[in-house]
This record gives sequence, structure tokens and C-alpha cells, in this order.
Amino acid sequence: MKVIDGGVTSPKGFMAAGVEAQIKYKNRKDMAMICSKAPCVLAGTFTSNVVKAAPVKWDMEILEKGKPVRAVVVNSGIANACTKSEGLKACEETAKKAAELLGTETHEILVGSTGVIGMQLPIEKMKKGVELLVSKLSDTREAGNDAERAIMTTDTLPKELAVEIELSGKTVRIGGMSKGSGMIHPNMCTMLGYVTTDAAISREMLNKAVKEDVVDTFNMISVDGDTSTNDTLLVLANGLAGNDEIKTENEDYLKFKEALHYVNQTLAKKMAADGEGATALFETTVINADTKENARILAKSVITSSLTKAAIFGHDANWGRILCALGYSGVKFDPENIDLYFGSKSGRILIFSKGDAADYSEEEATKILSDPEVTVTVDMKMGEETATAWGCDLSYDYVKINADYRS
Amino acid sequence: MKVIDGGVTSPKGFMAAGVEAQIKYKNRKDMAMICSKAPCVLAGTFTSNVVKAAPVKWDMEILEKGKPVRAVVVNSGIANACTKSEGLKACEETAKKAAELLGTETHEILVGSTGVIGMQLPIEKMKKGVELLVSKLSDTREAGNDAERAIMTTDTLPKELAVEIELSGKTVRIGGMSKGSGMIHPNMCTMLGYVTTDAAISREMLNKAVKEDVVDTFNMISVDGDTSTNDTLLVLANGLAGNDEIKTENEDYLKFKEALHYVNQTLAKKMAADGEGATALFETTVINADTKENARILAKSVITSSLTKAAIFGHDANWGRILCALGYSGVKFDPENIDLYFGSKSGRILIFSKGDAADYSEEEATKILSDPEVTVTVDMKMGEETATAWGCDLSYDYVKINADYRS
Repeated sequence: MKVIDGGVTSPKGFMAAGVEAQIKYKNRKDMAMICSKAPCVLAGTFTSNVVKAAPVKWDMEILEKGKPVRAVVVNSGIANACTKSEGLKACEETAKKAAELLGTETHEILVGSTGVIGMQLPIEKMKKGVELLVSKLSDTREAGNDAERAIMTTDTLPKELAVEIELSGKTVRIGGMSKGSGMIHPNMCTMLGYVTTDAAISREMLNKAVKEDVVDTFNMISVDGDTSTNDTLLVLANGLAGNDEIKTENEDYLKFKEALHYVNQTLAKKMAADGEGATALFETTVINADTKENARILAKSVITSSLTKAAIFGHDANWGRILCALGYSGVKFDPENIDLYFGSKSGRILIFSKGDAADYSEEEATKILSDPEVTVTVDMKMGEETATAWGCDLSYDYVKINADYRS
Repeated sequence: MKVIDGGVTSPKGFMAAGVEAQIKYKNRKDMAMICSKAPCVLAGTFTSNVVKAAPVKWDMEILEKGKPVRAVVVNSGIANACTKSEGLKACEETAKKAAELLGTETHEILVGSTGVIGMQLPIEKMKKGVELLVSKLSDTREAGNDAERAIMTTDTLPKELAVEIELSGKTVRIGGMSKGSGMIHPNMCTMLGYVTTDAAISREMLNKAVKEDVVDTFNMISVDGDTSTNDTLLVLANGLAGNDEIKTENEDYLKFKEALHYVNQTLAKKMAADGEGATALFETTVINADTKENARILAKSVITSSLTKAAIFGHDANWGRILCALGYSGVKFDPENIDLYFGSKSGRILIFSKGDAADYSEEEATKILSDPEVTVTVDMKMGEETATAWGCDLSYDYVKINADYRS
């Protein structure tokens, strides 16, 4: 697998665009489109929140039908959540307009929204936005970046990447872009993730790969424990790479899944690191747990603890809070049997062992915790299962951003 | 029931003291004692965290034995958590010293600690503290207040109260004090709650009253979702009021339980309002839910949402976040069938109804949300069950306090 400079337009046959439609923001791009030249197989996952935004309902229906799709239209600024039938109507009108201009069917167009809950989308502006988008569709690197920038809200950095693999002698690419900061625990500004690939793969196998992979990637990040109404991950595969279609769990499937995992994990980590107000990516790896599920629960409990996150912001080696977060996770273990490590590019130190603080230097610990990527490793000594979760620190800016997000 | 000016020393036969023992803090009281002149029946609940501090283990053992108890010794500054057998030894030594001086048995002395995790208690200082405490024991109002002040950590206000009821012609009092900010989701600085009463009540009935009441009081508050290693609620009843002993669920039991509920709820609300960095008490009442348990889950989901808490701090009527928090609580409901209200002493307004924002004035909403006690009411329209949860807003000061708590 090779990482290449790229994004959603890197796989063959995928075009994108990002434009200023003035949905809510002024003087910035706020509508994006991804469009494939050929019909795509679709896989996806959505928020578990019972309050689902209109675009989530729209996309879920399309996914359930299982028919090929062609394009995605996304806006930022307004989430189109809690907008009743008028909100669903806006999805339909947007999709209809795009379908007309692209010469496809309305049900081949997916939609996505992120922003404030409870406001209706200005449908005329949306339609004009779609016109602009279609007129600007391009398969260039810049077009992909334009699309990514258009879906950002409180994000401070664009999140995109692309990778290349070889399947049955053909070059296959996977590209992705995302915004926001979570999936199971996303920031209200919502996680949206779009992955494109020119791999030829059956709907069943694409779905399997996505479902199996999100539990260890997008579902393992959290910024603030709030699960959005809009979270969406869509993966579109148009088959234009010309590889032998993946229909079983063969070697090609495993190669594809590994590459998809890299794309998903990278996008997920980028979201955690760019969590609202974050100054550091906070990674927790639990090793030697008794079950995979317990490893996941423990790792997530640490990265979601407000007290631990505040300590990371303060570069404070307050390991008691980590032990405490492991303790209330619901997983049973003997606190006197685990080891805790802090690590970063500055080094790695044992901080807690055999029920007691290890003999570490506070100075060294503070140095490690001052790096922009901090890792806690927890050795449970109970089995052989491992899981990693990603979050960020809790800073003044998180409060600032969220105390008056709407104004 | 009458609310009286008082605390743990209000019920007959209860003495208290608070002294400077220099356990970790300088120039402030940091050790407290509550002592009954007569043996007490004991009830209590403890943290559900699997990482339990030594004093929690000590008290749980005493509670399980079911024998009468006489006194509680509490220190602030060091939590005596993650301290292995040395930590338990410190509990024993402290209790032993107190028992010697009070002329009772070691297993009649309960202990409690709050503060930093992972440090050992300075046992000689603890013993000297116990000596000082015993020499200062008094049944005055001030002595109760001294005890309360000694157990505070990041608390900004003392939390005590007392009430009076009449049972079988006798005046019965219940007094309480607490510190910290939670039980199910307490602040790391730990919830400690001590309630005294001179009521004559059997161990079984006291236990029943406490167990039934905490689910709607202490368990319904949260500051930051972190469940401490030290959370403890102890209720001591010495029977000196001389009322007919409560042995069944008779009328006296119901009167007693109502008074206990008032004490517990008041202490719980005081903790939520004084949550670290809080500028407002944030109350959520769910009405007309299908089950009591669902009402509790929904109410707690709202008051624990970081995004909602930040919005309350910003006096921002961001009802979408409340709807979102209800939505990810795990309870199934139809978002288009619920009503949301904001309220405070400034008034009460309908903010969301029939799936849409109500026709409210943002100005009025901001005014309501600027009060120091803000209430959200959610009408589920699914049944007749009600629950209330209490939390606080999320402020810059929460981050400040917790980014470098140890220094």
C-alpha cells in the first residue's frame, strides 16, 4: 500500500467541487459535491441517535434499497435536523436538482448536512448551489480539496488522504475526506466522512469491509461524548480500476480492507486531533485485555474522561484519573495487576505498576505530555486483545467555541 | 417537616469537629469527625467504580457486618486511593486511634478521604489529627460547620442543612453535610455525604429508605461524568429522639423518608450547583415518560451533555443540543411528539413543540438562561413517569481547575 497525495478525486472517475452557496456562512465555500462518472456500489453507517437529521434518513433509505448511486451533495452551516417533513422535502429537492443536471435519477443522489440544528435549508440557494457545483465538477486534486473545505464547520484543518494498492494487476485507489470529530461520540458539528474508490467490489463485500472496520476506527474516536444527529460515513466504489471484482473474502479483499482501514483510521485520527479547542491528539491503547470488546470499552473510557482530558491539556501526569476512568468503564479487573505508560515522540515511561506509582520523573512525564500527540498504554495482563481509541484534550477553547456556537 | 438552621450536630447526641492536621493543605481545616454519644444504626452507598479507595473498602466491610457504629473520621487533600495494603493499614490505624480515645471498638469507626489519588496518608499526622478532633468534639452548630469545612476540596460553598419532624410525639431531627459534586458521575474531588439522625429506626428500614432515595437524589446529579474512586454516603441513626422505633413501612417511616429525601435532595442539588467552575445549577425534569427508568436516563443524558452544558454557560438557547442528548440516551421516542421548555425565576417558555422550534423570543430565552438556576422541562407525552436530574454548566474555570489540579 502506498500513500499518495490526494483525496476523494484520486480514484479513477471521481469528480468533486466546492462552492460558495451562502447557505448560512458568508465568504466561504459551504456546498460540496462528489460525483462518479460510473454508477457506484454504496456502503455506509449512520448516527445511532434516535433524533436523525433529514439527510441521514434520506441516505439510509437509499442505502437500504441497495441500488447503485452516482453523487453526494453536502452543505455546511445548517444541519437540516429537527426540520420535519420540510427538511426531507429539502433533501428531495436538492437530490432532484442534482439528478436533473447530472442526467441520473433522484434516488441515485445522496445528501449530507452539518451545522445548526432546527433551521430549515434555504431551498432556492441549495438549488443554485447544485447548479454551481455541477458546473465546476473536476477530477483535479484541487477540486477534492475544495469539496473538503466546503464541508468544514469548526474544523481548523482539512482532513483528506488517498492510498494506492494493486489488485489483480490493476492500480486501485481509495480516497477520503471528512469533517468534525466523532462517530459514536461526535462533536455536535457532526462527523461526515466520504470515501471513494475505483475498486471493483460487490455491494456485500464493500458493506462487510466497512461494517467491520468502523468499530475500530470511526467508532473509536470521541471529542465530547455527544452523538450527533447527522453522523454519516459513506463509501462509494465505482469499479473503474478494472480489477477482478471482489466477491469473496479472498486475498484482494484483505488487501482492500487493509487499505480502507488505513484511510478510515487516518481520517478518524485527524478528526480527534482537530477536536474543538484541542491542543493535542490523545491516544489510548489497551493491550492484553481479556476480550476485544473490553479493550475497546476501556480505551474509550479513558479518552472520554473530562478530568483526564483536562489533565492532558495541563500536561499533568495525573494517572489517578486514568485509573479512575478505567475503573468506572464497567469492565471488571484488578487495579493492582495493571501497568500504565505515557508516551509521545519524546519517549515512553512506566507510570503505574503493581498497584502503585512507578518511579518516574515528573519532569520527564510533563515533557512527554507537552507533545502534540500523547499516548497512554494500559497493559491489562488478562489476555491478548488490543484496542486503540483517539480523543483530544479539553481546553478553554472547547468551552469558548461551544458556549455560543450559534452566534 | 420544618427546615432548621443546622447540620450534622442538630440531631440529639451527635458531636462534630474540624481541625487543621496538615495532611496536605496548609492553613485550613482538613480533618473532620462526627461522633454519636450512643451506638448508631448505619446505612450507606458507595462508588460503583471497580477502583475503590481504601476508606471505601473499610466502610463497606463495616456496613456489611451490620454492627452498630459510633463515629466517622474524614480527611481532605489525599484520597487514599490506589494505595494498596498500606492504604488500608492507614484506615485501620486511624480508626484504632479514634476508638482508643472514644472508648469504642476499631470496627465502630468509619473513615473517609478525598483528594489526590495515589498518595499515601501521613499516618502520624492522621493520628495527631484524631487526637485534636476528639479534644474539640462538640454538639454546637459551629462544630458541625467546622467538620463540613474540613472535608471541602474544590468546593466553594459549604453544604449542610437540618430538618425537624415529629414522630410518635417526639421531635426527630435529620442533619446532613456533603462535599464534591456527584455520585454516579462525581467530580474526581469526590462526593462525600454524611447524614445524621436521632430517629429510632431499624437497620433494615434505614437501609431501605436510603437505597430507595439515592436513585432519585445523589444518583441524579452529575458534574462531569467521571465516577470517583471514593464516593460515599453514610447515614447514622442513634435513636436518641426516643420515638417509637420504626420497624415497618408505617406512617412514621413515610414521614421519615420524606424528610430524608429533602435532606438528600438538598445536599445533592448544592453539590451540582457548586460543581467545579459552575456558574449555574442546571436542572432537567422529564415528565410523562413511559417508565421511571427512562425518565431518569433522559434527564441525566441532558444534564451530562458537554455541549448542552457549554450552551448553558453561554446563555444560549441551543435546544437542538438538548434534543440531541435525549436522542442518544438510548431511550426510544418520537422527536416530533415532545415538548421542551426553558424556565427559571424569570419565567418559563415553550421552546420546541411538534417537531419544530416554538414561536419564542430569543431575548426572553437568553434572560431565562442567564439566571443562576436554569430548568429544562421535557414533556415526553408517553406515560406518567417523572424524574429530575441536576448538573451545572461547563465553564472555562472547570478546565482551569482540572488542567492542573495537583499543583
